[in-house]
Amino acid sequence: MSSGEGLPPLLIHPARLDVALAKRIKLVGFDVDGVLTDGGLYLGSASRDGAHVPFELKRYDVQDGLGMAMLRDCGLKVAIITGRVSESVAMRARELRVDACIQDPQARKLPALRRLCTDLGVELDEVAFVGDDLPDVAVLRAVGLPVAVGNSTPEAARAAHLRLNARGGYGAVREFAEALLYARGEWTDAVERYVKSRSGDAHEGSEVPQ
Amino acid sequence: MSSGEGLPPLLIHPARLDVALAKRIKLVGFDVDGVLTDGGLYLGSASRDGAHVPFELKRYDVQDGLGMAMLRDCGLKVAIITGRVSESVAMRARELRVDACIQDPQARKLPALRRLCTDLGVELDEVAFVGDDLPDVAVLRAVGLPVAVGNSTPEAARAAHLRLNARGGYGAVREFAEALLYARGEWTDAVERYVKSRSGDAHEGSEVPQ
Amino acid sequence: MSSGEGLPPLLIHPARLDVALAKRIKLVGFDVDGVLTDGGLYLGSASRDGAHVPFELKRYDVQDGLGMAMLRDCGLKVAIITGRVSESVAMRARELRVDACIQDPQARKLPALRRLCTDLGVELDEVAFVGDDLPDVAVLRAVGLPVAVGNSTPEAARAAHLRLNARGGYGAVREFAEALLYARGEWTDAVERYVKSRSGDAHEGSEVPQ
Amino acid sequence: MSSGEGLPPLLIHPARLDVALAKRIKLVGFDVDGVLTDGGLYLGSASRDGAHVPFELKRYDVQDGLGMAMLRDCGLKVAIITGRVSESVAMRARELRVDACIQDPQARKLPALRRLCTDLGVELDEVAFVGDDLPDVAVLRAVGLPVAVGNSTPEAARAAHLRLNARGGYGAVREFAEALLYARGEWTDAVERYVKSRSGDAHEGSEVPQ
Repeated sequence: MSSGEGLPPLLIHPARLDVALAKRIKLVGFDVDGVLTDGGLYLGSASRDGAHVPFELKRYDVQDGLGMAMLRDCGLKVAIITGRVSESVAMRARELRVDACIQDPQARKLPALRRLCTDLGVELDEVAFVGDDLPDVAVLRAVGLPVAVGNSTPEAARAAHLRLNARGGYGAVREFAEALLYARGEWTDAVERYVKSRSGDAHEGSEVPQ
Repeated sequence: MSSGEGLPPLLIHPARLDVALAKRIKLVGFDVDGVLTDGGLYLGSASRDGAHVPFELKRYDVQDGLGMAMLRDCGLKVAIITGRVSESVAMRARELRVDACIQDPQARKLPALRRLCTDLGVELDEVAFVGDDLPDVAVLRAVGLPVAVGNSTPEAARAAHLRLNARGGYGAVREFAEALLYARGEWTDAVERYVKSRSGDAHEGSEVPQ
Repeated sequence: MSSGEGLPPLLIHPARLDVALAKRIKLVGFDVDGVLTDGGLYLGSASRDGAHVPFELKRYDVQDGLGMAMLRDCGLKVAIITGRVSESVAMRARELRVDACIQDPQARKLPALRRLCTDLGVELDEVAFVGDDLPDVAVLRAVGLPVAVGNSTPEAARAAHLRLNARGGYGAVREFAEALLYARGEWTDAVERYVKSRSGDAHEGSEVPQ
Repeated sequence: MSSGEGLPPLLIHPARLDVALAKRIKLVGFDVDGVLTDGGLYLGSASRDGAHVPFELKRYDVQDGLGMAMLRDCGLKVAIITGRVSESVAMRARELRVDACIQDPQARKLPALRRLCTDLGVELDEVAFVGDDLPDVAVLRAVGLPVAVGNSTPEAARAAHLRLNARGGYGAVREFAEALLYARGEWTDAVERYVKSRSGDAHEGSEVPQ
């Protein structure tokens, strides 16, 4: 089965995500610009001794980060795949301790994802991917659960099975993490486990990544 | 009394905050990301001599800062408690001259708050805490006045007695400061005192922190 | 006449700004945080050789800047008065070539404005001031044309004669500049003069600041 | 024909852009602040060894960047013309590989555009220009297809033939790129070409700039 193609091209509400499909997922991939961020690229420079020191920022969302930690805590692999190279993405990937962070300057995300699947022993049919624009379309057409954020372009939205309400950088990743884990029946337990581990001192409860 | 548990789990309008409860509060704690900020993490790097110099920003709100100053001016203790460590938080804490700034990389906020209460001689029942997400839930369940910002996740909102209209980073802290001091009958006087102290020259009026 | 006190405390629509009042204005003062900006304070640090290099940003609006240039082009004095000191404000003031930039760390704006008026030979009655919060209230109560931005706190809004629709950092300054110059009968000519001076080569048209 | 003047001063919906007009366009020019960005100027400084190191940021939109790449992929020339000089604009221009990046500190955009047209052998009648404010009005009055973003001032909007729904920095450039290429009958093919080139490995498909 060539994954996403077998699904109806309708956009469904996250709360109605199919349980069997949700349980099949082993790897969740995320685009960066427009998905982990709101698509903003902050570019500028500092002026020091007459020279320009260029720098670049992206804006990530703290609640999204916790959603990604919950996915990992429930045993899912998490990957970041972007077609634009920046140190900012590497910093965020380290903080979130994702399983893979692929930055391909030519935006050939599908071949990169295929290689990652081979490395991890995962089928494309077992992959969910969240994207927002043309560089994501080839991947969205190939994976088992293609997802588009609220600010997706029409082309990315049409290639998705699930369309989120929230916008990239403002809760879209968290919305998807909750929807996926909820459909798998794992969200409520994961939340209580998280809260309990933070209620006592360090020696109480299990060590759950933030 | 184990504090927040005795209160109905309903969300009330700030203007209807119970007077006796408001007057009992001696310490106000604030989460950072999503409460003092809108949850945005600005990450990036400068390129200098071929090396990457990483940096990170958060966006705070100036009107919120004045709300925190008003709380302190009315004799309340103010604390910042976050589960994510950054220099940005230390900078903002210094500027606001808060009574305590706790940055715990393992997000064990409740044990940290318990220690702070012991140090200050304050009961959990006399604490208000403003949060937005799972790392705050254990604290919200324990304090006398648990508060959730407008952009809270469902889990944090459910653990709160008071839900604010404003979002973190866009006036939520100010909304709470005004609601609390108003219920205590102290807001109007504090405002006039502030305005008067700024109307004359340095030797006129009392010295009120900005 | 002690200026603003003689005016009704009603908020009027900018298009209905009184012509005689508008023509009396010789100096326009602006608060910074929440007026020239949306109130956001971007704080953070770079990590270099193990040391933290703190830095701070504010976000200004380019259309606001042109509004301030139009005020100056029509012969009005323009001043920035803030109670929070930062290099960012000095940078923006230089770019806008304002007549005065006062940064008072104790937020005593009214005494500072009085001194500026004396220096410029202007009466408080001939001053318009745009503010958003408590540190501006003493000034708003004293000047001839007190103005509040769309995101003003209730206290600042109550002290204003004119309340703008636009928010600070998102066009409030431009809205006021246009309203004031329109009421004075100078806006349309100033616009055409600006456009004409940009239509030809450098030697054509008069030199108007951007 | 003196270009824009012959067109009705009405604002039309992008989907109704005249096909003959769209096909005539050979060069697309963009203003920066308020068009490629939302008009925000992020100014600040770092404190290092007691000295202030000034820096400046602007926020660009990643989906806009792909829209500009699609214009170039379809054979159109793309130019950035701004009246404010910054390293940020030069950085974004390099990343987008535009055909020209003109930064004129006196905001004389029309003479600059005339010179560029001469260099490229393009008539003003074959130029589309997207602007938002007074510095763009002289250009908007002169080109074949004058366009205003959603956040335009009244003066810029009145000078435009086409008014976009999206705001600068939040998809306005992408909206225009799609509208123009769609009216030319080139959008759908360009999208499929882009997606196909990203679906295989590096040696498959043609090299299309991102």
